[in-house]
Amino acid sequence: MTQRVIKVRTKPSYEIIIKPGLLSEIPEDLKANFSFGKVAIITDSNVEKLYGRSLLNLLQSSGISAKLFSFPAGEQSKNMDTVVLLSRHLIRSNFDRHDLILALGGGVVGDVAGFLASIYLRGIPFVQVPTSLLAQVDSSIGGKTGVDLPEGKNLLGTFYQPARVYIDPEVLKTLPESNLRDGLAEVIKYACTLKPKLFSFLEKNHHAVLSLKDKALLRIIYDSCQAKAQVVSKDEKESGLRRVLNFGHTLGHALEAYADYKLQHGFCVAVGMVFACRLSERLRLAQTGLTERVERLLKLYQLPTRISELGLKVDRADVPKILSYFGRDKKVWKGKLTLVLLKNLGDFVFYEVSETKTLESVLEELL
Amino acid sequence: MTQRVIKVRTKPSYEIIIKPGLLSEIPEDLKANFSFGKVAIITDSNVEKLYGRSLLNLLQSSGISAKLFSFPAGEQSKNMDTVVLLSRHLIRSNFDRHDLILALGGGVVGDVAGFLASIYLRGIPFVQVPTSLLAQVDSSIGGKTGVDLPEGKNLLGTFYQPARVYIDPEVLKTLPESNLRDGLAEVIKYACTLKPKLFSFLEKNHHAVLSLKDKALLRIIYDSCQAKAQVVSKDEKESGLRRVLNFGHTLGHALEAYADYKLQHGFCVAVGMVFACRLSERLRLAQTGLTERVERLLKLYQLPTRISELGLKVDRADVPKILSYFGRDKKVWKGKLTLVLLKNLGDFVFYEVSETKTLESVLEELL
Repeated sequence: MTQRVIKVRTKPSYEIIIKPGLLSEIPEDLKANFSFGKVAIITDSNVEKLYGRSLLNLLQSSGISAKLFSFPAGEQSKNMDTVVLLSRHLIRSNFDRHDLILALGGGVVGDVAGFLASIYLRGIPFVQVPTSLLAQVDSSIGGKTGVDLPEGKNLLGTFYQPARVYIDPEVLKTLPESNLRDGLAEVIKYACTLKPKLFSFLEKNHHAVLSLKDKALLRIIYDSCQAKAQVVSKDEKESGLRRVLNFGHTLGHALEAYADYKLQHGFCVAVGMVFACRLSERLRLAQTGLTERVERLLKLYQLPTRISELGLKVDRADVPKILSYFGRDKKVWKGKLTLVLLKNLGDFVFYEVSETKTLESVLEELL
Repeated sequence: MTQRVIKVRTKPSYEIIIKPGLLSEIPEDLKANFSFGKVAIITDSNVEKLYGRSLLNLLQSSGISAKLFSFPAGEQSKNMDTVVLLSRHLIRSNFDRHDLILALGGGVVGDVAGFLASIYLRGIPFVQVPTSLLAQVDSSIGGKTGVDLPEGKNLLGTFYQPARVYIDPEVLKTLPESNLRDGLAEVIKYACTLKPKLFSFLEKNHHAVLSLKDKALLRIIYDSCQAKAQVVSKDEKESGLRRVLNFGHTLGHALEAYADYKLQHGFCVAVGMVFACRLSERLRLAQTGLTERVERLLKLYQLPTRISELGLKVDRADVPKILSYFGRDKKVWKGKLTLVLLKNLGDFVFYEVSETKTLESVLEELL
């Protein structure tokens, strides 16, 4: 199957390569394109067994000196202790600035390994090999790295671009199904805000996507990566356009925080997108019917459209508390909250929210 | 007294301002030049008492919302735990990307606060207010930040430029005298490699410098900052020219590591400079007499020129062990070690060392 390549024009710029079966071609591609010493595979305890060991063997049998470092899978590993522990292992294995970190795993692995790469000896090169759909279409692109603090998620981190992103859609076939849906919420986000043709494709091809047909996967990953690459190429550090990626995320993040981060990110974003669409209609930015169409698509992909579907017990009295999380967003400045709303599919606006009554009333409809 | 300004042309660029009494002018300068919310003074337990509290009051009485965060003084605080603790305090005090970190202290404070600023919410602005001579002429300029690991110094960090550096030579008058000499070693480094006129000035004016006369301090700080600014403007991330700043540091770092980091940095660098000069003569790069002149200057400033003067008990049998630390330098690549040597004062060369016999023999002369 053909290989797809997307150029991300950040500083420095880099390429995203998408191809089924790409995993086994990584060693040769690295040798052909980069000059480096050793390779440190950073992965977690789950992905280590699925792909870590075999990639390690592949690298070694193509003559690359490589070592694997893994940490316990899960968000609870996404902290500074993990970063310090990994860096101590790297030092003791004599990794230096001319070696390469390879991040193999989902969002947590990419964020932790990218952060590690950005601060280890003040920065060493790294490549991303995302193995979840969410990481493939979102977190592996754009250079955001970071770890959590007890006070909140992603509070410490850097902007640090990978040298290359290797996306192999084949690896999605070994993922738990709910994990796939998590990523599909982000795919739908790109479709709503930037890729109306992808929206139609998703409407017509949900069987092919959900049964992981190669061509369908390649299409949705390529379109999503292209959307994200375009955005981060224009705005590397989220001052302007990059905020569009936050569509559905303001309420999404609030719900995640409200539920103590026990819910899946994509599921919260799905409800958040319904919220943004409804609000767009209520404010007469969008025509009636937009929300219905978005909700229908989310349901096709078995994504939640109401807070109750998240397994959260919430009533009207909890609405102000959920909305209070809006103000804690990193992007809030002097109390001004900007939401990403839609005029139509592919036609977004940044909307500065001044009064909360409307937010409350729309949120109440989504309980 | 006139204010001196040096522009550092990194990305982004920034200014170093040098002026006796500058400390009290910081609040007005910040307001005039930057747009920010609150100020977080990061300092250590010593500097907090000397200047932290009064600067906090100054900021507050000029209408700036400010808070002070301090950690125990000393190199043992230069670790990730300190960074995590400080960042949790900042989060709980609602510091965000539009606020400002002010690093007030010596090298450890600057390195820790700069690193914190570079990773807090993926980067917030910071200014440097160095209070030791070493920090004023060296560590506050150039954007190197970082913390130690049990395995070694400065192993985790970033390149992150301050928004401004405020240097007030007056603060040196409250410093312990050995602390001053620590910085003088770096001043002599600039004199040897880049500023031969400063070398002559130091030879002729050691009384004025050592008795902390304003004009003499201003001169040596200005010349040193200018030298460092020129170098880092041309080479932000130590691939080329920046290596000149390593003059005397290869042996210096080796001695520090050998003595388990219990010695003062500048004292080890002083012996390291004698080593580099002697080696330059031995390799016939420099004329006989250079070492003698450098040694004489170091002695004028009561800096050590022999390993025994560091309080280290070392004999010939230990020489290979000390030299083994040369290979652990971050700048070593594929076993190739480049030393900064001198052809003359102000005329340096990067010399790739191929055989160790000469190193051993020169080092033995310095026991």
